[in-house]
Amino acid sequence: MKHIPVGVLGCTGIVGQQFVRMLEKHPYFDLALLAASSRSAGKKYGEAQPWVVDGEIPHAARDGKIVDAGIEPLAASGVRVFFSALPPSAAGPIESELRERGCFVFSNASSHRKDDDVPILIPEVNPGHIAMAERQATLHRGFIIAGSNCSTSGLVMALKPLESFGLQSVSVTTFQSMSGAGRRGIAALDIAGNVIPFIRSEEEKMERETRKILGTLEKAGIRPCDLGVRASCCRVPVREGHLLSIDAEFGEAPDAEAVREAIARFRGVPQQLALPTAPVSPVILRTEEDRPQPQLDVRAGSPARARGMAVSVGRLRFKGRRLSLFALVHNTIRGAAGTCLLNAELAVAKSLIS
Amino acid sequence: MKHIPVGVLGCTGIVGQQFVRMLEKHPYFDLALLAASSRSAGKKYGEAQPWVVDGEIPHAARDGKIVDAGIEPLAASGVRVFFSALPPSAAGPIESELRERGCFVFSNASSHRKDDDVPILIPEVNPGHIAMAERQATLHRGFIIAGSNCSTSGLVMALKPLESFGLQSVSVTTFQSMSGAGRRGIAALDIAGNVIPFIRSEEEKMERETRKILGTLEKAGIRPCDLGVRASCCRVPVREGHLLSIDAEFGEAPDAEAVREAIARFRGVPQQLALPTAPVSPVILRTEEDRPQPQLDVRAGSPARARGMAVSVGRLRFKGRRLSLFALVHNTIRGAAGTCLLNAELAVAKSLIS
Amino acid sequence: MKHIPVGVLGCTGIVGQQFVRMLEKHPYFDLALLAASSRSAGKKYGEAQPWVVDGEIPHAARDGKIVDAGIEPLAASGVRVFFSALPPSAAGPIESELRERGCFVFSNASSHRKDDDVPILIPEVNPGHIAMAERQATLHRGFIIAGSNCSTSGLVMALKPLESFGLQSVSVTTFQSMSGAGRRGIAALDIAGNVIPFIRSEEEKMERETRKILGTLEKAGIRPCDLGVRASCCRVPVREGHLLSIDAEFGEAPDAEAVREAIARFRGVPQQLALPTAPVSPVILRTEEDRPQPQLDVRAGSPARARGMAVSVGRLRFKGRRLSLFALVHNTIRGAAGTCLLNAELAVAKSLIS
Amino acid sequence: MKHIPVGVLGCTGIVGQQFVRMLEKHPYFDLALLAASSRSAGKKYGEAQPWVVDGEIPHAARDGKIVDAGIEPLAASGVRVFFSALPPSAAGPIESELRERGCFVFSNASSHRKDDDVPILIPEVNPGHIAMAERQATLHRGFIIAGSNCSTSGLVMALKPLESFGLQSVSVTTFQSMSGAGRRGIAALDIAGNVIPFIRSEEEKMERETRKILGTLEKAGIRPCDLGVRASCCRVPVREGHLLSIDAEFGEAPDAEAVREAIARFRGVPQQLALPTAPVSPVILRTEEDRPQPQLDVRAGSPARARGMAVSVGRLRFKGRRLSLFALVHNTIRGAAGTCLLNAELAVAKSLIS
Repeated sequence: MKHIPVGVLGCTGIVGQQFVRMLEKHPYFDLALLAASSRSAGKKYGEAQPWVVDGEIPHAARDGKIVDAGIEPLAASGVRVFFSALPPSAAGPIESELRERGCFVFSNASSHRKDDDVPILIPEVNPGHIAMAERQATLHRGFIIAGSNCSTSGLVMALKPLESFGLQSVSVTTFQSMSGAGRRGIAALDIAGNVIPFIRSEEEKMERETRKILGTLEKAGIRPCDLGVRASCCRVPVREGHLLSIDAEFGEAPDAEAVREAIARFRGVPQQLALPTAPVSPVILRTEEDRPQPQLDVRAGSPARARGMAVSVGRLRFKGRRLSLFALVHNTIRGAAGTCLLNAELAVAKSLIS
Repeated sequence: MKHIPVGVLGCTGIVGQQFVRMLEKHPYFDLALLAASSRSAGKKYGEAQPWVVDGEIPHAARDGKIVDAGIEPLAASGVRVFFSALPPSAAGPIESELRERGCFVFSNASSHRKDDDVPILIPEVNPGHIAMAERQATLHRGFIIAGSNCSTSGLVMALKPLESFGLQSVSVTTFQSMSGAGRRGIAALDIAGNVIPFIRSEEEKMERETRKILGTLEKAGIRPCDLGVRASCCRVPVREGHLLSIDAEFGEAPDAEAVREAIARFRGVPQQLALPTAPVSPVILRTEEDRPQPQLDVRAGSPARARGMAVSVGRLRFKGRRLSLFALVHNTIRGAAGTCLLNAELAVAKSLIS
Repeated sequence: MKHIPVGVLGCTGIVGQQFVRMLEKHPYFDLALLAASSRSAGKKYGEAQPWVVDGEIPHAARDGKIVDAGIEPLAASGVRVFFSALPPSAAGPIESELRERGCFVFSNASSHRKDDDVPILIPEVNPGHIAMAERQATLHRGFIIAGSNCSTSGLVMALKPLESFGLQSVSVTTFQSMSGAGRRGIAALDIAGNVIPFIRSEEEKMERETRKILGTLEKAGIRPCDLGVRASCCRVPVREGHLLSIDAEFGEAPDAEAVREAIARFRGVPQQLALPTAPVSPVILRTEEDRPQPQLDVRAGSPARARGMAVSVGRLRFKGRRLSLFALVHNTIRGAAGTCLLNAELAVAKSLIS
Repeated sequence: MKHIPVGVLGCTGIVGQQFVRMLEKHPYFDLALLAASSRSAGKKYGEAQPWVVDGEIPHAARDGKIVDAGIEPLAASGVRVFFSALPPSAAGPIESELRERGCFVFSNASSHRKDDDVPILIPEVNPGHIAMAERQATLHRGFIIAGSNCSTSGLVMALKPLESFGLQSVSVTTFQSMSGAGRRGIAALDIAGNVIPFIRSEEEKMERETRKILGTLEKAGIRPCDLGVRASCCRVPVREGHLLSIDAEFGEAPDAEAVREAIARFRGVPQQLALPTAPVSPVILRTEEDRPQPQLDVRAGSPARARGMAVSVGRLRFKGRRLSLFALVHNTIRGAAGTCLLNAELAVAKSLIS
C-alpha cells in the first residue's frame, strides 16, 4: 500500500507548493514527478519560483527538473497518481486524458466539478461519494476526484456537525485572502487597505458545490441537497485564510449546548481511519470572544502533518431558530492541496489505487 | 440664522478633526471653541496632534488654544452650541450638564443614545424625531441630539429606501475600518494582514439603534420598530470606511427595478431644505460588478462640502423575498461628525437653535 | 497666453489621471484630448478605468471619448501641446514623431531622458536647461521636455538648497510606494507586509539623472556634475509617496543653522514667476522628531492647486562633514505629472509655446 | 551538562514566547519557570496571551502557571538560569538582584548593555567577550550577559565577515518590523500603509552597541572599536524581520570575489562547537537580484532548531572602496531570544554554568 509514486501538476504555484510540501516524507506517496507549464518546464524546481509556503523547500524537490505538463511527458513518466493544481483552462483536457489512460487524478481545479460522475470530495463530509470514482473507473480506465472551492470547503466543514439539527438555509459572507487568487492574481494597489466585494463566480460556486457535497448519492448520480445557500464573497488584504460569517437557520431552535458539543466532538472517516493528513479534530471550537482570526488560527490542526487542515469556528450566537457563527479555513491547505491529499489517502485506504 | 458660534469637544481625535474640517467656512456656524481633555488643554491646536483627516488643517484653527473640556471653562466661553466627540466616559456627564445650562449638544458619543428623550437622528431617515429635542428643552433648558453608531448609520441609510417594500428582517456582516476604533484603538500587530471578528458592543448597538431610528415617535417617546436585525461585526485592515454585507428579507418579493429606482431617486429632508452639508444624492447606486469599495468610494458625495456624506450601495442580488447588497459608509463623516453637523443644520432650519 | 488646448497621452493610468486632475480649470491650458492605448480607445473616459486619484473625476473629462494614441489620430486633433504618461515602449517613437510635426511634448516617460538634446527639467532646480528645448526646436519643429524619475525628483529638490554648501557626495536609500510601479505593476502577495529591495533600473536612473539635472548647460549640451551618487532602492507597502533616507557629505562641515535656513527659505523660478502649480514653499522643513511620513505629509504644498508639489524634509542630523536627513516626495505629482505641468507652465512663461 | 532548569522572565510578550518556543525539547535546558508582571501572574500560560509565534504553543508550557517576576518568587523557585525579556524598567533592578543571588541572566533587555562589566554577546561575532561574565562572577555571585539591540545584531553579523577587509565606516538605513516595538507598541493607524522615519534611541543604540560588540577586550574592560557608524532607523508595516540597507567603506577597494567568499564561508565559534541553536551558515549570501526580502527570507537558518538564526545578505554592489548591500535579520529570534539562547549554550559549553 505504500510508496506509490505520484506527480504534482502545476507544481510552481501556491497550491502546487503546498502539495510538494505536504508530500514530503509522506507514508503512502513518493513525489516522483514535478510538472508545470512550458514556461517552467526544464528548470530546476528550486529555481523556477520562490518558495512561499511554510518551511524550507523539501530537499528532494529542490533539484528536481520540472516536466512539461502535456499528456505525452506525463504518460511517459509511468506515474499513475496525480495531484493537479493546474489552472482550469489547462486542467480540463489534461485531467480527462490522464483518466482515459488509467490514471487517478486528485484535482484542485474547478474544471470537472460540475461533471455528473465526478465527486467533489471532502472526506470528513461526504466520504461515501468516493463510490463515484469506482463508477468512473468502469467507464474510463482511471478516475478524477475533485476537491471543492476553497471557501466552500470551510463552509461545509463548519456545517457538517450542524446537519443533524435540521439545517434549512444558510447565508454566508466571506473574507477571502489574497492567496486564493493565486500568486499574481491581484494587483497590490487594488487590495492594499481595501476590501473588494466581488470574486468572479465564487458565489455561484459556493451555492452549487455546497449542495452537491451535502447531496445524496443515488444510482443516477448525486442528488443535490435542497439547503438554501446564499453567499456574498469579498477579498480582503490578508495573506492566508478565508474567514466566513455564517447565518444558519434551522427547522426549529436547536439546543445551544448540544450544538457546541456536536462541533467539538465531530470526527469523520479520516479520523476513524487515522489517515496521515487527517487532523485529530477536524473542526475546532474556539470559545474566546474574538476568535477565530486568520493571523492566529489559520494553521490550526494537529499533528504537525495536519497543520492547516482543521477548520476553526467561534462566536456562536443563538437566537431562536437561528445561529450566527464565524468559521476560518486555510484556503490553500484544507481549501485546496490538503483536502486533495486526504482524498487520495482515503482512496488508498479504500483500495481504489495501489 | 447665520454665524452661530460653536464649540468642538474632543477636538483632537479623528472625529474631532472631522468636525473642525467640516466647520471651516461653514455658512451657519463659526468655530469659536476647541476643547479636549486636560492632556491637550493649553496647547495650540496645530501642535496637539498630527492632522490626519483630508486637506490642510484650517488656518483659523491651527493657532487656536485648546480649552479644557470641563463644565466651567465651557460655560465661561459663552458658546451654546456644541459638537461632541468626547469618549463615552467623559461625554455622559458633561453633555448632561451643558444641557442643563441651556446648551444644544450634537453628540457623536454613545452615552445618551439609550435615553428615552434623546433622539438618534439621521436627517434623511428620521427627521421627525427632532421633535424630541423640543420636548427635552421643556424639561431641561437645552437638548442633546445623538448621532448613531457609525455602522448603524450606513445600515439605516441603505435600508431607508427599501422600507416601503415591506422590509421584515435584515442580517448584516460588517467590514469596519480601523479609524472606527479611534486613533490609538487598535495595536498594529493585532490587525495587520488580519480580520478580527469582534468589536465590543457593536452588534448590540447595530440591532438596538436601528430599531430606534426606524421607530415611531409617539407621545410616550419612540416606539422601536420590530424589524429583525442581526449583526456580525468585524474589524479589517482598512483606514476609512465601513463596508456592510446586507441580506434583507421582505414580506413578498420586491420588484427589482422598482427597488433600484427607489434607491437611486431617494432624497430626504436635508435635500429638500438644501442644507449645506447635505449630499445631492444621499444614497448612490453603483452598477459596476465590484463596487462599492472603501478605497474608491468612501468619499462619495457632492458637492465638495458633502464629500463622505453619501452612502454607496451596490451588487444588488434579488432572490425571491430576499435581497443581498453591499453598502459603504464613511465612518468618521456620515457615520460620525458629518451626521451630527447635518443634525445641527436641521435644527437651525427648524429654528430650534439660533 | 491662455487657454492653450492640450492633450494627455496615457490618460487612464495613475499619472494620466493626475494630469487630468491637475488640468481641471487650469489658467493656461484646456484639456482638449484624452488619448490612450487601443485597449481603451473609443471608451468614455469615466468608464475606462476607476478614478483613483484625489477628488472627483473632473466633470468635463468624464464623458470625453478616449482617442487612440497613434500619430495620425493625434495629429488630426490639431492639438500641439501634449503631456505624456505613456509607457516607455510606446512613448519613445510617438513623442519623437510629435516633435517632428511641431508639437511640444512634456513627458513623464524615461524614453528620451538620455537624449543629448532633451533636458530633464525641474523648474525649481535647473530652469536654465529649458534653453535646450529651444535648441531642439531649431532642428526639429517641436521639442520634448522630460520630467525626471520619481525618486530623483525628490532627491534633487532636497539637495538643491544644499548645493551651495559644497556638496560632494550623496548616498540614498529609498522607500518607494507601490503607485510608482503603475496601477498593476506589483502583485499583492509580493509586497503585502514585505519590502522588496530592488526596483529595476531605478538606482542607475537616480545616479545618472541627478548628475544630468544638476549639470551645467554648455554649448555642446549638458555636462553632468561630478557629484558622487549612490542609491539603494526599495519598494514598500505604501500607496503614495517615496521616502528617501539621504546621507550627504560636504567638502567641509556646514553650519547647521545656515543649512536649515537655506532649506526653509528656498524658492525657485516658479515661485518668482508665480506659476499656477508652483507651491509657495517648494521644500518644507519639518522640525518634529518623526516626520516626514507618507501618510501625513505626502500631499504637502499650498495653495490647493499645488498640493503634492512640495517636498518635505526632516530629521536633519549633522556630524562633521556629514548630514543625514529624510525627504518625502509625492511620486505621481511632484515626481511625475505635477513637474511636467510646471515645466509646461514655465515654457508658457518663457514664450516657448503659445 | 544537560537538563539545566531555566526560567523565562517576561514570558508573555513576543520575545518571551520565542524563548518558550525555542526551549521546547532543548538538549541543555528544561523550562522550569514562567514569570511575568503581576498582571499575568497566576494565570495559565496558555490563557494569558494569544500565542503569536511559529508553531503550536508547547504542550508542556500551555498549562504552566505564571509566577510573578519579583525577586522573592524567583529566588524561591530554585532556578538559577534566567532568560529575560522584561521591559527595561523592570529588567534593570531584577536582573541585578538575580546576579547578586548567584544567578546567570541572559538578557534581551537594554538595561545593562552599557555596563562596563556586562558584555553584549553575539557568539559568532565576539565570543571572547564571554570572559567578562567570568569577571562579573568574581565580584557578584552570578553574571548578566546581554544580547544586542535587534537591528544591531543584523548589522554586526553582516559586517563580521567584512572586518578583515579593512572596514572603516558604515552607514545604515533600517526598515524595521512592527514586532520590534512589542505586541502593543504601535497603533495600527500610525503605521498602516506608512513609514515612520524615527524609532526612539534606536540610532544611538546601533552606533554605540556596534562599536562595543566589535571592540577589544582589555584588562580594563572593552575598548570600543573606532568604526564610524551612522544609522537612520525607520519603522515599516512588516510583521517580522528588520531589513538593513548598508553602505560600507573600506581602507582600500576590496576584491569582490574574496568578499563574496568570505561571507558565504563565514563560520563562528557556535558552528565549531555545534551548539544546538547555531545555524549551519550564520550568514547566507543570496545571489538573486531582489533578495533578501522579509516575507521570503526572515526564517532563514537550518537545521529546524535554528530557523530565524541566519542573517541573509544580498545585492552586493561594489564601487571602489565602497560596498552597498542589504541584510535581513529576524528581529525576535536572531535579534533577541535566539541570540540570548545561543549565549547560554556557549556559556554551558565553556562550563560557566552547570
